[in-house]
Amino acid sequence: MKAQRVDMFVCPSATPADTSGLQALADAGKIKPDTLVALVGKTEGTGAHDDWGRVWADVALRDWTAKFLGIPVGEVAKHVIFVLSGGCPGVITPHIAAVTREWLDVPDGSQDGEKRLVVGRAGSDAITPEEVGRMGQIRKVADATHKAMADAGLTDPKDVHLVMVKVPGLTTASIADAESRHKTVVSHDLTFGPEGAGAYANDAAALGVAMALGEVPESKLADDVVRRDWDLYSEVAMTSVRQALRSAGLRFKDGLPDEADLSRLVHVFAKSVIPGSDQVRGQRITLLDDADAYQIGKALGGMLVASVTGRTTNYVSGGERNSHQGPPGGNIVAAVVRAN
Amino acid sequence: MKAQRVDMFVCPSATPADTSGLQALADAGKIKPDTLVALVGKTEGTGAHDDWGRVWADVALRDWTAKFLGIPVGEVAKHVIFVLSGGCPGVITPHIAAVTREWLDVPDGSQDGEKRLVVGRAGSDAITPEEVGRMGQIRKVADATHKAMADAGLTDPKDVHLVMVKVPGLTTASIADAESRHKTVVSHDLTFGPEGAGAYANDAAALGVAMALGEVPESKLADDVVRRDWDLYSEVAMTSVRQALRSAGLRFKDGLPDEADLSRLVHVFAKSVIPGSDQVRGQRITLLDDADAYQIGKALGGMLVASVTGRTTNYVSGGERNSHQGPPGGNIVAAVVRAN
Amino acid sequence: MKAQRVDMFVCPSATPADTSGLQALADAGKIKPDTLVALVGKTEGTGAHDDWGRVWADVALRDWTAKFLGIPVGEVAKHVIFVLSGGCPGVITPHIAAVTREWLDVPDGSQDGEKRLVVGRAGSDAITPEEVGRMGQIRKVADATHKAMADAGLTDPKDVHLVMVKVPGLTTASIADAESRHKTVVSHDLTFGPEGAGAYANDAAALGVAMALGEVPESKLADDVVRRDWDLYSEVAMTSVRQALRSAGLRFKDGLPDEADLSRLVHVFAKSVIPGSDQVRGQRITLLDDADAYQIGKALGGMLVASVTGRTTNYVSGGERNSHQGPPGGNIVAAVVRAN
Amino acid sequence: MKAQRVDMFVCPSATPADTSGLQALADAGKIKPDTLVALVGKTEGTGAHDDWGRVWADVALRDWTAKFLGIPVGEVAKHVIFVLSGGCPGVITPHIAAVTREWLDVPDGSQDGEKRLVVGRAGSDAITPEEVGRMGQIRKVADATHKAMADAGLTDPKDVHLVMVKVPGLTTASIADAESRHKTVVSHDLTFGPEGAGAYANDAAALGVAMALGEVPESKLADDVVRRDWDLYSEVAMTSVRQALRSAGLRFKDGLPDEADLSRLVHVFAKSVIPGSDQVRGQRITLLDDADAYQIGKALGGMLVASVTGRTTNYVSGGERNSHQGPPGGNIVAAVVRAN
Repeated sequence: MKAQRVDMFVCPSATPADTSGLQALADAGKIKPDTLVALVGKTEGTGAHDDWGRVWADVALRDWTAKFLGIPVGEVAKHVIFVLSGGCPGVITPHIAAVTREWLDVPDGSQDGEKRLVVGRAGSDAITPEEVGRMGQIRKVADATHKAMADAGLTDPKDVHLVMVKVPGLTTASIADAESRHKTVVSHDLTFGPEGAGAYANDAAALGVAMALGEVPESKLADDVVRRDWDLYSEVAMTSVRQALRSAGLRFKDGLPDEADLSRLVHVFAKSVIPGSDQVRGQRITLLDDADAYQIGKALGGMLVASVTGRTTNYVSGGERNSHQGPPGGNIVAAVVRAN
Repeated sequence: MKAQRVDMFVCPSATPADTSGLQALADAGKIKPDTLVALVGKTEGTGAHDDWGRVWADVALRDWTAKFLGIPVGEVAKHVIFVLSGGCPGVITPHIAAVTREWLDVPDGSQDGEKRLVVGRAGSDAITPEEVGRMGQIRKVADATHKAMADAGLTDPKDVHLVMVKVPGLTTASIADAESRHKTVVSHDLTFGPEGAGAYANDAAALGVAMALGEVPESKLADDVVRRDWDLYSEVAMTSVRQALRSAGLRFKDGLPDEADLSRLVHVFAKSVIPGSDQVRGQRITLLDDADAYQIGKALGGMLVASVTGRTTNYVSGGERNSHQGPPGGNIVAAVVRAN
Repeated sequence: MKAQRVDMFVCPSATPADTSGLQALADAGKIKPDTLVALVGKTEGTGAHDDWGRVWADVALRDWTAKFLGIPVGEVAKHVIFVLSGGCPGVITPHIAAVTREWLDVPDGSQDGEKRLVVGRAGSDAITPEEVGRMGQIRKVADATHKAMADAGLTDPKDVHLVMVKVPGLTTASIADAESRHKTVVSHDLTFGPEGAGAYANDAAALGVAMALGEVPESKLADDVVRRDWDLYSEVAMTSVRQALRSAGLRFKDGLPDEADLSRLVHVFAKSVIPGSDQVRGQRITLLDDADAYQIGKALGGMLVASVTGRTTNYVSGGERNSHQGPPGGNIVAAVVRAN
Repeated sequence: MKAQRVDMFVCPSATPADTSGLQALADAGKIKPDTLVALVGKTEGTGAHDDWGRVWADVALRDWTAKFLGIPVGEVAKHVIFVLSGGCPGVITPHIAAVTREWLDVPDGSQDGEKRLVVGRAGSDAITPEEVGRMGQIRKVADATHKAMADAGLTDPKDVHLVMVKVPGLTTASIADAESRHKTVVSHDLTFGPEGAGAYANDAAALGVAMALGEVPESKLADDVVRRDWDLYSEVAMTSVRQALRSAGLRFKDGLPDEADLSRLVHVFAKSVIPGSDQVRGQRITLLDDADAYQIGKALGGMLVASVTGRTTNYVSGGERNSHQGPPGGNIVAAVVRAN
């Protein structure tokens, strides 16, 4: 039978367009044109919807990948998934994680009971501006999630531990396009603010995943639950960094992971969303009111993960005020740990 | 003999001008006109040099105190010290801590070997705009520190665990005043940025304290070491939240303080300064470059303290890039814990 | 017959709580407890929904007015209207304009054909959080506009040249209140951003005025036209600074008002809203995308008005992206000019 | 004899990396590999020292130029000058202006008395981090200015109407480099704030130009006059938009340029610096205190230029608080107008 062998390599980036780490991996034979399946990273810059650091990184990574694969730039998205999250406030090091997958011949039954990391990829059908943040997007993301599970060789939703979705935001141009066709859009705010199109798009993606994995029945979903009914959410992963590391087999000592074990920690993916309430354990905080809440919310998550892992090359996105990505007041986190 | 009995009460503030918590303490007899010695707090707002939330709080607290003490507003500063730190980014709850001191008659020798919390207060001579951030300020702060030690009944610098200094910044008007007298000022930047007058003022205060406590000899001090020679610093307190809590007698379990013990924790004072390097454990972070580094630096410290204490009403100031308040890469923190 | 005599005095403010200019007017007998009808001003600060500079100014002005009128603070709103607009980016000087009104006995017919400035005031019924930015607010503002016209002695809407409405925003607390009663609110974004509650509240007020003045028929109004159908708007005043000054009788020379005439200019009220398109005369600008568009939009209007009037003590609010206050692409402006 | 024929073409940019306008000029034969001498533009983004929009534009323009000239990217700076100013707040359209120069054979004496636009280019010797904002930079810029005049064929400083200098800022890395060699740097603030390295670098460049053109004698220049002695400045151009347009031959009507004449206006270069005082015509403004003063200062200049030229594709940089680029309170502006 065929079995996946998945690996992951984390390269710090000196600038948004820095591909030297990837090139070194390629030169060392660690990533190959036919094994590279995804590039996932944090890029320095404003983190806003018009963050040119992220856009430049995206262009540079696609150019590099096209050369690496020996194909035109326009073709790379069919082979490699690119997910870049802009903004590294606080203690988040800009970096790119390369994900590789090989199919190995293994004797039938050789992996009985031993679950290993697998990955699957899929693209959704094109999402129109008027679908962003609404049922149209939710259904297309749900479909794509099913396709990605099939690509990963998974059938049981319980085996899904992290779904990363690259979502379309809205732009001045795409809104004008929709309205010229007499369609409305979910928001005229392009940001990741409380009524921002970026936040709606992220949340419709989360609900699409929740629908695909059976966490939320389709009958409960509608345009007007998005960013309104917080009892609906996807929770495919742990909601505490410590819990995630423990469940992945790391031992803890005095509240922190064992130093030796930490070398087995490959990467952490975490979401850092601002709670929807201005009360933390009964005391008021002003974060919901703050003009820079988006950056600070992200920074707080980066600090928490770094304080437990002792490293700063973590993938931490977030900053939205409330989200369907995780239960109310909770955030999702996934750790990739190398088996002994 | 006379001995001090010091107490501290933390009141969350619903708005910058909220004095209802203080009034409740007064009504309950917990603070009295002749025992109130200081009001120390965090106020919501921008945290910038022109943070009107902080200014309004200052005015409102002085008004309230004048009424409480039955004296004109212009007289309150002789009786009560006001230290307000603006900006509550992230998980810092706006609050005011009232500090009281009583002198009790105790039998001679009854406290042998038992050290308890004491407080002392002093005002410095007036600091001119041209002295801000320079030796003029350093010497005046050193003098005031000695006076405050005397007021506290302390002679050994080792018994000093926290010195809070309210420093003058520069303003457009005070700079114009200095320059009209043909004096230069340390900076034309009014902010807490890397060359900001606010940062210079805070750091000259730290060096003044260091000089008073013998941490840095006067011979090493000069105008041009301020914010330049980071080997000179004051470190009157712990540099880790956990360490501070442990040294104050709290027991830890699984990396966090014992819940029962936490009820004895009265308050935490912490500084959260951005390290002077863009490297954290060998990896680059972008914090030194970030436009909102001042807010984020403060927020990160607030997160760290809250993640250990489990509460958000902590006094966390900071956000400056590097500082003489603590060793390079370190920050100072002090915990007030009630004895059993 | 009775005729109004209205006057207006502009006092620059040294701080948000500066009432010394008003006190000087009172001492000089220019404003009296029974003639003061409104205090309208620009306050320094962030201009955001939680701008403590504006809040402090509001508290300080009410305190001063209560003392001036010899009544409790809680009563002042029945006698004097307070409209404060936060944020003075660029070349806008913080200031307060005091408006006075006296009723004089004049011979019948003495004012035939001569229109002079009159003012009227009214408060609306209380507006609930769920009504903000919706028909509930629109109708209550329309009613209040009719009441203010009656108070001014006006019956013809054409005689109305400026309606200033102080609107309620939403807060974390008021949203929680509405939702606890199972009501929805127009937005969870508290700001003046494109989907912000502040922008919805301002625009519902504009539509309420438009309804009262017959500019928009009630049949065209509904919850979902607010911040969506830009063909509906109020335009009670000029839409160009030059035009406003000319129509008020100022002569122009070489594109700028005659210096001598300018001394007759008492005050300018202007709105500076960002156009809803990213095209200006066929060229793209990035303002709709910019994180600081709210401040910059306001600053641009301040610059335009100052470049024509040659002074900075102008009332310029705005910064919203698009608005029902004025036609698409246009802004409203009103000039108060002293007759010779 | 040889005479220069200079032309200039303004291309709006759809994104920072948009080179389609240049390509269209190339395809139309308007710019040629041997005539292109400079690309000067405004790029969208934060405008800060780490503005990735500007960096990306720089990389993309150099790539395009290398292909256009058929030379390696590393060689393009020897042939073409690149000056990009980041940040388009308000009504400034992102754009690139291509400058071309041809040497034509003209009959001797054919241009007697007729001055036409000429351009010259030069690079300075490498400027070390410790020289930035100090005499080292001033002298190297002065030398380069002389070389550029020679390249332009100019000997009389009065014939110089605009000098654009691309200056080096400081970075965390270059500061560390200097300090590792026991050198100090002018500032640890990387921004364009009042004590920012970017502002020092711009001002040392202005003083270098002033020295080269004889506006300021070398004897008056020293490290400590930079950003301190505002009586020293360069003023190679007009200080009012209207004045600049008039002196370039545009006729005005009712305060604005004649529409027909405006079609002859090729481009405007303007600096928009915040005055060093908080008083404008006797009234206080808060701009010196504002956190976003850098963006707003730039936006105000963009508004002024656009309000006179009726177009948004103007090159407006600035936002620094005070500058040696122009007299106290004044700014420099240059207009390029096509002769009839």
